[in-house]
Amino acid sequence: MGTRRDVLGGIGVGLAAGALGGAAWAQGKRKLGYAVVGLGSYAVNQIMPRLKDCEFAELKALVSGTPAKLEKYGAEYGIPKTHWYNYQTYDRIRDNPDIDIVYVILPNSLHAEYAIRASQAGKHVLCEKPMATSVAEGQAMIAAAKKAGKKLMIGYRSRFEPYNLKAIETVKSGALGKPTLIFAEHGFPISPNQWRLDRPLSGGGSLMDIGIYSLNAARYLAGTEPLEVSAMEATDRKDPRFKTVEDRIDFQLRFPNQLIANCVSSYSSAHNAYRVTGSKGWVGLDPATPYAGQQMWTRIGGKVEQVELPKPAKNQFVEMLDHLPECIASGREPIVAGEEGLRDMRLIEAIYRSAREHRAITLA
Amino acid sequence: MGTRRDVLGGIGVGLAAGALGGAAWAQGKRKLGYAVVGLGSYAVNQIMPRLKDCEFAELKALVSGTPAKLEKYGAEYGIPKTHWYNYQTYDRIRDNPDIDIVYVILPNSLHAEYAIRASQAGKHVLCEKPMATSVAEGQAMIAAAKKAGKKLMIGYRSRFEPYNLKAIETVKSGALGKPTLIFAEHGFPISPNQWRLDRPLSGGGSLMDIGIYSLNAARYLAGTEPLEVSAMEATDRKDPRFKTVEDRIDFQLRFPNQLIANCVSSYSSAHNAYRVTGSKGWVGLDPATPYAGQQMWTRIGGKVEQVELPKPAKNQFVEMLDHLPECIASGREPIVAGEEGLRDMRLIEAIYRSAREHRAITLA
Repeated sequence: MGTRRDVLGGIGVGLAAGALGGAAWAQGKRKLGYAVVGLGSYAVNQIMPRLKDCEFAELKALVSGTPAKLEKYGAEYGIPKTHWYNYQTYDRIRDNPDIDIVYVILPNSLHAEYAIRASQAGKHVLCEKPMATSVAEGQAMIAAAKKAGKKLMIGYRSRFEPYNLKAIETVKSGALGKPTLIFAEHGFPISPNQWRLDRPLSGGGSLMDIGIYSLNAARYLAGTEPLEVSAMEATDRKDPRFKTVEDRIDFQLRFPNQLIANCVSSYSSAHNAYRVTGSKGWVGLDPATPYAGQQMWTRIGGKVEQVELPKPAKNQFVEMLDHLPECIASGREPIVAGEEGLRDMRLIEAIYRSAREHRAITLA
Repeated sequence: MGTRRDVLGGIGVGLAAGALGGAAWAQGKRKLGYAVVGLGSYAVNQIMPRLKDCEFAELKALVSGTPAKLEKYGAEYGIPKTHWYNYQTYDRIRDNPDIDIVYVILPNSLHAEYAIRASQAGKHVLCEKPMATSVAEGQAMIAAAKKAGKKLMIGYRSRFEPYNLKAIETVKSGALGKPTLIFAEHGFPISPNQWRLDRPLSGGGSLMDIGIYSLNAARYLAGTEPLEVSAMEATDRKDPRFKTVEDRIDFQLRFPNQLIANCVSSYSSAHNAYRVTGSKGWVGLDPATPYAGQQMWTRIGGKVEQVELPKPAKNQFVEMLDHLPECIASGREPIVAGEEGLRDMRLIEAIYRSAREHRAITLA
């Protein structure tokens, strides 16, 4: 493939994209229209309110199986009935020219189907992470977008968040010396009775939902792709929450140049942090990937210092939601395109396989 | 064996031992005499000065291959020439009734030989960690002490340090809920040209020297013994320091009840910390195992608090050095007897094997 060990081409582009895209955006050009598919908590509490703040995008359509939700959010966001869809009428989005982008925010196992149908309807797709529940599904999504000549982007919002970008930049700058160790931990004590705990809907447990932040962070902090993965699972199968999915799966990633990442993924304790240590010091975020409130520290030359960045013009959600329209306008690939999601999917499969087979997996 | 999954019997005994031993120590009874074998930096800067502060022990003899060191420290500590030994005359310690205990502070590969010869000379032995460079050597040391009817203790000083004991107690108390994750990291950027980097003397790299603190801490914090180990090594063999020993080896330990430890061992970056996370919060030390200056934090019920303990009457070195005389007087086994060192040796061998074979090792 030739790409596996390459540095992630787009790192740091997120912040720069605003300026570039802004210049590229023609004066008076209309904002691109998003259809949001799935009106769950993340969609209604995080994404839809942020679309109001976008420079290049706006909310234009809603897709839900629950009529009451269409009524409620249709009224709240001024979306006419002509722009409401359910899962039976979904494919008719192809006939709606106000919809440019479909944002899939469904349970994981539905991502592939609804992303592919959106591509087939001639729409660009933004899809929540994990992009799918298997590599095969991810490949099919990429193929469908390619066939349609439309873009596919995965919702890795941390790649648009200033502290995360600053951490990437700090590692790249050489300020830490040679990076030797990444520690990334993500987890929360999960409440019972939700789709995340139902394997047919989630495709897996903590790794699919929250551990993917440790995985993705390890990769964007390393700036390279791992060569080997080893994982250990720990799940109390007597806990009613964990009948079909794993609770905890901690994994090690070996990157080129003697860099190892130790990663935590948990559904039974609270974690949200990472740290990169090099021969000259470290940079760490705690919390690292929340919706807001990141805090950053460095220790370089023996001195621990908190790093405070100016409040950005657009928060991570708005940057992400504006990035896809900018890429559509400029013809560039999103910094978190389908291929980026597929790299995580390959690693997720390898992590599960390592834990199951009690051996390290060499990545092809 | 039946002991593998037992909680460590002696946990928490360290601090209590002072009071118990003090009472047991007969009024006017002479202090037991230590011979220090190997007058390197740890011996002369850390151990010998602390023997002056001991309640039940004193420095009585010196063993070194360097006559100038015998002259210098003999004069400094008032040790007569009759109590100076070199490696040719070492076995004559058997004829010196002032020597009760031999403290072996030599390069790792010499531990077994000099500990066994001390046992054969009828002396009790305190031996630096790692106890040896293989399980076979460790077993031979235990057998020799047993045959002599004398004690064998390993120099795990953190088991006598108040913050470490408090961390153990915090986990045991249930304040963290069910412990799910231990993170332990130890390392330092090693200077070139020393015996630690010479495999015939050290028996291994960072794991033998500093990673053993992560390993031992994981075990004393868990209070149980691991069932499975998985490890990943990262060594730049072009670095002249690492021609014969490993730089970094990070390992995972699976303990009973879904507890996983993620451990770091490094000769190329600075680390000295651990944290135990449970369903209700965490306890962490940073630094965790230095000679002095431990700092402790807990987060229980969402609130991060620094924990400050009163200065103990005896520091960790003095507690450790007094513990063996107390055990000799009372007939009790040291809380860190030879068997404790052997448990670490078994795990060290399993960690190296896991990294070499790229697979998890189930512990017998």
